[in-house]
Amino acid sequence: MSDARYMALALSLGRRGWGKTWPNPAVGCVVVSDGMIVGRGWTAPSGRPHAETEALAQAGSAAKGADVFVTLEPCAHHGRTPPCAQALIDAGVARVVIGVRDRDERVAGRGISMLRAAGVSVVTGVMEAEALQDHAGFFSRLEQGRPMVTLKLAASFDGRIATATGESQWITQGPARRLVHAMRNVHDAVMVGGGTVRADDPSLTVRDMGIVQQPARIVISRRLDIPLSAKLAQTAADVPLILCHGADAPDALVDAWTGMGAVLISCRTAGGQLDMIDVMQKLGTHGLTRIFSEGGSEIAASLLRADLVDHLAGFTAGVVIGAEGLAGVGPTGLARLGQAPRFDLVETQVVGPDVLHRWVRRRA
Amino acid sequence: MSDARYMALALSLGRRGWGKTWPNPAVGCVVVSDGMIVGRGWTAPSGRPHAETEALAQAGSAAKGADVFVTLEPCAHHGRTPPCAQALIDAGVARVVIGVRDRDERVAGRGISMLRAAGVSVVTGVMEAEALQDHAGFFSRLEQGRPMVTLKLAASFDGRIATATGESQWITQGPARRLVHAMRNVHDAVMVGGGTVRADDPSLTVRDMGIVQQPARIVISRRLDIPLSAKLAQTAADVPLILCHGADAPDALVDAWTGMGAVLISCRTAGGQLDMIDVMQKLGTHGLTRIFSEGGSEIAASLLRADLVDHLAGFTAGVVIGAEGLAGVGPTGLARLGQAPRFDLVETQVVGPDVLHRWVRRRA
Repeated sequence: MSDARYMALALSLGRRGWGKTWPNPAVGCVVVSDGMIVGRGWTAPSGRPHAETEALAQAGSAAKGADVFVTLEPCAHHGRTPPCAQALIDAGVARVVIGVRDRDERVAGRGISMLRAAGVSVVTGVMEAEALQDHAGFFSRLEQGRPMVTLKLAASFDGRIATATGESQWITQGPARRLVHAMRNVHDAVMVGGGTVRADDPSLTVRDMGIVQQPARIVISRRLDIPLSAKLAQTAADVPLILCHGADAPDALVDAWTGMGAVLISCRTAGGQLDMIDVMQKLGTHGLTRIFSEGGSEIAASLLRADLVDHLAGFTAGVVIGAEGLAGVGPTGLARLGQAPRFDLVETQVVGPDVLHRWVRRRA
Repeated sequence: MSDARYMALALSLGRRGWGKTWPNPAVGCVVVSDGMIVGRGWTAPSGRPHAETEALAQAGSAAKGADVFVTLEPCAHHGRTPPCAQALIDAGVARVVIGVRDRDERVAGRGISMLRAAGVSVVTGVMEAEALQDHAGFFSRLEQGRPMVTLKLAASFDGRIATATGESQWITQGPARRLVHAMRNVHDAVMVGGGTVRADDPSLTVRDMGIVQQPARIVISRRLDIPLSAKLAQTAADVPLILCHGADAPDALVDAWTGMGAVLISCRTAGGQLDMIDVMQKLGTHGLTRIFSEGGSEIAASLLRADLVDHLAGFTAGVVIGAEGLAGVGPTGLARLGQAPRFDLVETQVVGPDVLHRWVRRRA
């Protein structure tokens, strides 16, 4: 097999950690000895042990003289564990193939230098574009201080997410809704606005997938005017709940939600609304790397206005609602078409009777 | 090859006539002798000669004892030409395989009876579902008195067809726009509302495809308040232009447009708007079988409200405009989601940077 094939395997292993390893990157690692895969590892939930540690442990003595494929440059700094670069050297591996160099100032290039200084052959940039995409949330937090954001829209053929009377169950069908749960599962947190909580009373958990670690739930609500009886409140002790609010939220509500186990984050306001740039920076500081935004239309518009959306996930149903229906994206204040954010198509997929189309932000 | 494979070939030949043969059906025909294709034919532009005539002429004496695959039951009545069933008998063919039986009262079952009476073996219903779809425009006019309607929407990710200021060039890109021209080419007529003419001044012709016969252009305008200087007017002598108007349209404008070569059709109004059911019936009477509706949002909503849309063709671009933008479908008066028209997915296709998703009306 070629280096790229082994790296593709390492990437697929790394993706198993999506949504589980924050604030650490979800890395994948494969150890190959004489053409045999002798070790496979990925970053464990909560970020430790690292992928290399797992894969080397599996390989045991077979790691000596082996080729190691790792999606992200091995760490070189002593954190809670000894550096992975040192572990690779100690195991006597012959060659390390790296997807993408780290950009963390504590690591960038140092893992590679440490390996080379010890006589280990190092190749970098194998399937680099894919590795960059796979670690986009980690890099976004590192470089921009904010998590990567996926904006989901489940809409009618004409882009409506509910009828004029607020009826939204169901525009898309069961297979699309199940896929949404799978998408939640590969993000660190699911995010909605207070209006969505008031309208739909969602629990925002991943259901029927036998998963152990639920993504966190984030609610954006300046005044915390969401019912204390909401499903989110009832489950706050079991599944992380983060409430982003303004300085003008009543202290009594801040205390009540804190008492229920929620994490309260006070954010700046701008023009009477929460400043989404500040919200995202604070969520980055909290450690989040991958956020799945599920609505409503005002949150979607705020995120787009601030150019905070990295991925779009659109489900389109074969039903037409008409202009009285609720728009999936609220007012964006767009003046010229040329200023509208453009996204590149990643894939289309037929999901039961509906269509999924995924896009990634085109950055100049 | 199996009967179905030959029928698939006949169907693909028949489709070459789409948009060109109205009011006649666009039929395809293949003559097979000893496993060799000895004749291929499709309905000629304007509807004559018929597919069978063409295919038999090509086959010549090889038609004797041959198998003939024809997408629609051969005609049995003397119209402008002798019946095709008789031509098949005269040529001495052994077997006729038919996609779908005709439903025209003058023909239904009679072509088959005539063939069988003459000792020709007849098989029906081979690839019947496909044959029904291919002849849907013909059958729609026959059974409902109106043409089949395809509604096209080229919209942003959030279902907007223009910005708040009316900017719509370009949401989708060149490849999608070229495909729209190819779609026009397989319909009898392209249809828009007067507002679209005022806003965009389109010529609605098929360009850069080397085609000879342009689809007709239809404008829906109750009061005929569209500029006499419009591109549609300038080309009215060359490419058919049909104006559907109300009884209250000024006589002077009716005369002026008639003088320019347009066909004027007076239609009923209902609630201050043209009654789309009457419009479609009158267009059916005019002979049209396949209509491609390109906007604007009011026409789209009127067609949907009256359940006159058979196919949806949605182009989705990777750009987000927001709620101030122009909706692709106007108000439909929908009360409950359960009453919204549902469509089944036919295909998705990546078209340059955009996505095409095609749907067909789910009929109970």
